[in-house]
Amino acid sequence: MLSFARTFKALGDPTRLRLVNLLAQRGPGICVCDLVEVLQLPQSTISRQMEPLRSLGLVRARRAGTWMLYAFEEREEPFFASLRAGLDAAAAESIELQADIERFDLLRERRELASCCRPELQKAMNSEEGACCGSETSTPAAPSTRSA
Amino acid sequence: MLSFARTFKALGDPTRLRLVNLLAQRGPGICVCDLVEVLQLPQSTISRQMEPLRSLGLVRARRAGTWMLYAFEEREEPFFASLRAGLDAAAAESIELQADIERFDLLRERRELASCCRPELQKAMNSEEGACCGSETSTPAAPSTRSA
Repeated sequence: MLSFARTFKALGDPTRLRLVNLLAQRGPGICVCDLVEVLQLPQSTISRQMEPLRSLGLVRARRAGTWMLYAFEEREEPFFASLRAGLDAAAAESIELQADIERFDLLRERRELASCCRPELQKAMNSEEGACCGSETSTPAAPSTRSA
Repeated sequence: MLSFARTFKALGDPTRLRLVNLLAQRGPGICVCDLVEVLQLPQSTISRQMEPLRSLGLVRARRAGTWMLYAFEEREEPFFASLRAGLDAAAAESIELQADIERFDLLRERRELASCCRPELQKAMNSEEGACCGSETSTPAAPSTRSA
């Protein structure tokens, strides 16, 4: 019972709900640097709030160079499938959650997300989780300060 | 967004989750006196924990004489329908939540729930929400101290 209560509790924090919302609605993997940009929160806050989400199996993380990539953990168990449906409903109904998604989409469209400019993230996303900028097959735009 | 976070948070407390579980799985209405008996918690604790559940629309309450009857609020909105499915899944998977339900069923079977012996509750349950002892059409067993 405690694990179910802990899972509900984890989603009961507004910051964690915003994080899970973005990961669930805009996967398949988002760099912590982009979460910082979209949510306008310090990286330390995001990393700290991710911990209970990871330990409860709501979110998975993996390292790409010096960065962490986070993804919503799609699980088939009835409880988690219901939670996913609840998150989808909340995303559809909440102006604030929708605003986060729209901001993410806008920044991605403008190629202003940091992961678009970092080769190690592009590589990680292209090779395993898809491009963040929607150009999965093309070479990412090299930043002007990069010579190779 | 805050209302969604608050709803998750409300279910994130083990006592509140136990209460909602009983109401959701064993409606259509349970007297606070029976919740005291099943959960072995003080009435003041139960009443206090019900407050956020009521204000969030997860639970409804109505008075029957000197007692309060609580019921799970069945709601059709997608978010609440998903939560209901999540609660059903948790009830099916959690040993502790199942134990509460089994204890409730056992006490009801033995007619040891207080609401079975209190005419005002029997009347309230029969007239609007069904009998607690499973005899919705028959006259409830009158307590020996009652003459009329």
